[in-house]
Amino acid sequence: MRIAIYGYGHLGRGAALAAAAAKDAELIGIFTRRDPAAVGALRAPVYAADSLPRHVDKIDVLLLCGGSARDLPALSPRLAKDVNLVESFDTHAKFFDHFSAVDNAAKAGGHLALVGGGWDPGLFSCVRVLSDAILPGSRTRVLFGPGVSQGHSNAAAGVRGVATARAYTLPREDTDVWADLPTEALHRRVVYAVLDGSREAEETKDELLSLAPYFSRENTEVRFIPADDFAAHHTALSHGGRVLSRGTLGESSFESSFSLTLDSNPLFTGAVLVACARAIDRMARRGIVGACTMADLAPADLSARTREELLRSFL
Amino acid sequence: MRIAIYGYGHLGRGAALAAAAAKDAELIGIFTRRDPAAVGALRAPVYAADSLPRHVDKIDVLLLCGGSARDLPALSPRLAKDVNLVESFDTHAKFFDHFSAVDNAAKAGGHLALVGGGWDPGLFSCVRVLSDAILPGSRTRVLFGPGVSQGHSNAAAGVRGVATARAYTLPREDTDVWADLPTEALHRRVVYAVLDGSREAEETKDELLSLAPYFSRENTEVRFIPADDFAAHHTALSHGGRVLSRGTLGESSFESSFSLTLDSNPLFTGAVLVACARAIDRMARRGIVGACTMADLAPADLSARTREELLRSFL
Repeated sequence: MRIAIYGYGHLGRGAALAAAAAKDAELIGIFTRRDPAAVGALRAPVYAADSLPRHVDKIDVLLLCGGSARDLPALSPRLAKDVNLVESFDTHAKFFDHFSAVDNAAKAGGHLALVGGGWDPGLFSCVRVLSDAILPGSRTRVLFGPGVSQGHSNAAAGVRGVATARAYTLPREDTDVWADLPTEALHRRVVYAVLDGSREAEETKDELLSLAPYFSRENTEVRFIPADDFAAHHTALSHGGRVLSRGTLGESSFESSFSLTLDSNPLFTGAVLVACARAIDRMARRGIVGACTMADLAPADLSARTREELLRSFL
Repeated sequence: MRIAIYGYGHLGRGAALAAAAAKDAELIGIFTRRDPAAVGALRAPVYAADSLPRHVDKIDVLLLCGGSARDLPALSPRLAKDVNLVESFDTHAKFFDHFSAVDNAAKAGGHLALVGGGWDPGLFSCVRVLSDAILPGSRTRVLFGPGVSQGHSNAAAGVRGVATARAYTLPREDTDVWADLPTEALHRRVVYAVLDGSREAEETKDELLSLAPYFSRENTEVRFIPADDFAAHHTALSHGGRVLSRGTLGESSFESSFSLTLDSNPLFTGAVLVACARAIDRMARRGIVGACTMADLAPADLSARTREELLRSFL
């Protein structure tokens, strides 16, 4: 399959690395809104984002590696008209509306688009759907972390007086995951920040903690640390989480747990997007159009292996 | 969907209970090789197994609830000619050949058959396929238990001198799951058995421990207990296990773990088969024929919920 990457931040770089590791993928180009000459991608030619229309004929699947807040709401519906695509929209509250917009655009263009690829939404969604399908009435809860929240990190780094910051999400060990509590109550945040010297620590911290919607209603701890400590310990984008499920049938109870521990969130998400691209390429060739999610993909369609290999070694 | 159950042991009863809990399933009959009048199924009419051909026209999917050792190798190919079916063949070493036989039969009859439904093979297979698809070269290991091995329990109960027995599989905590060891070396067995008084305990135990292929090469402990202790503590068919996976991309490592804790193995497996029947019914209506596994099923096809419900509450 011939894939291309649109957007070359952390996620785009993860997708490029995963494409290089996939023997059946050919990365035909990277499209960026920055100056192509300034983008140091060694794995494929780099083009200006607005030249994409001239290249769509040679792209089987476009990996749209933008952010959910500013890029994908407009970009996904626009590009789904012209090319099969895979993206990672992850705002649960707006998922249905975004999906519908992409679905309409993809159908209008006769293309197939995967919305919300990654681990949550994505793999975790599949676990939630399967748990509910197998044991109707079962409950699931998700615990995130320990890991870096990029949105919260960027928000903290934007506070006046902060030079740079990383916000970690941690599951609280002192709460009952099955109690009727909002997700926020099951987590806490720890922000490691470096001061830039322009403002008092107390004042900076007060503003950070009052930031809505990020820290204002959350259990957050702020730790100011020296720049060299930050550089040594807080540059990775590690993350993870787990989906817990429990249900009953007759008098019997059943529990499942699916957990991920990721050294790098964008690298793993990029690898999921490349596997999804394989399924989208195959399903598009079967004539399927419109939008879908990872819950619409059969695991075997994500795999580069033959049916016989899967039957002999993985079933 | 109109489903029927063929075989009414522990698994058949689990499937019947799960069918009753599924709002979109109608259980139109139970087929048994025993005397139908002697089968106490209250949930559906009970028919003699050999009357199945007279009923296939009103069955969308047949849940074939037989054993992998003696029933399924002959029954699955024979019945796949006449009706869409779901079964739970679980002998990994013979999986490819069995799958091929069912595939040929189902294609000849224009039907669709799900082979190896359940949790391993089944849900655990999906995790193995996905791990390998996302991170090529990743490794997976499975740990079983704590739980009851029904095959080993039956073997132990068949030893002269034993009135009844339960064999438990337990993961060994003292071994490195990632070391290059066979699956047996990662587990141990504990057999709880009641003596029938016809033979000395030592002699009975020696014969049990020498039973091939069950206990002869395994780390097994035998505990003889009184009949009332057995009745109080060892009648449930609990089981469980976990699939561990780890892989790398670039310099980063990734780990996943999927675990199940099941009060009743046959009830949970029956529930998985009913969910699979839903997917098979839908896929058969799309014109798909032949054999498939759970790795060929999209999670959304196993769910009774509408696409909008899934998008709004599960993605």
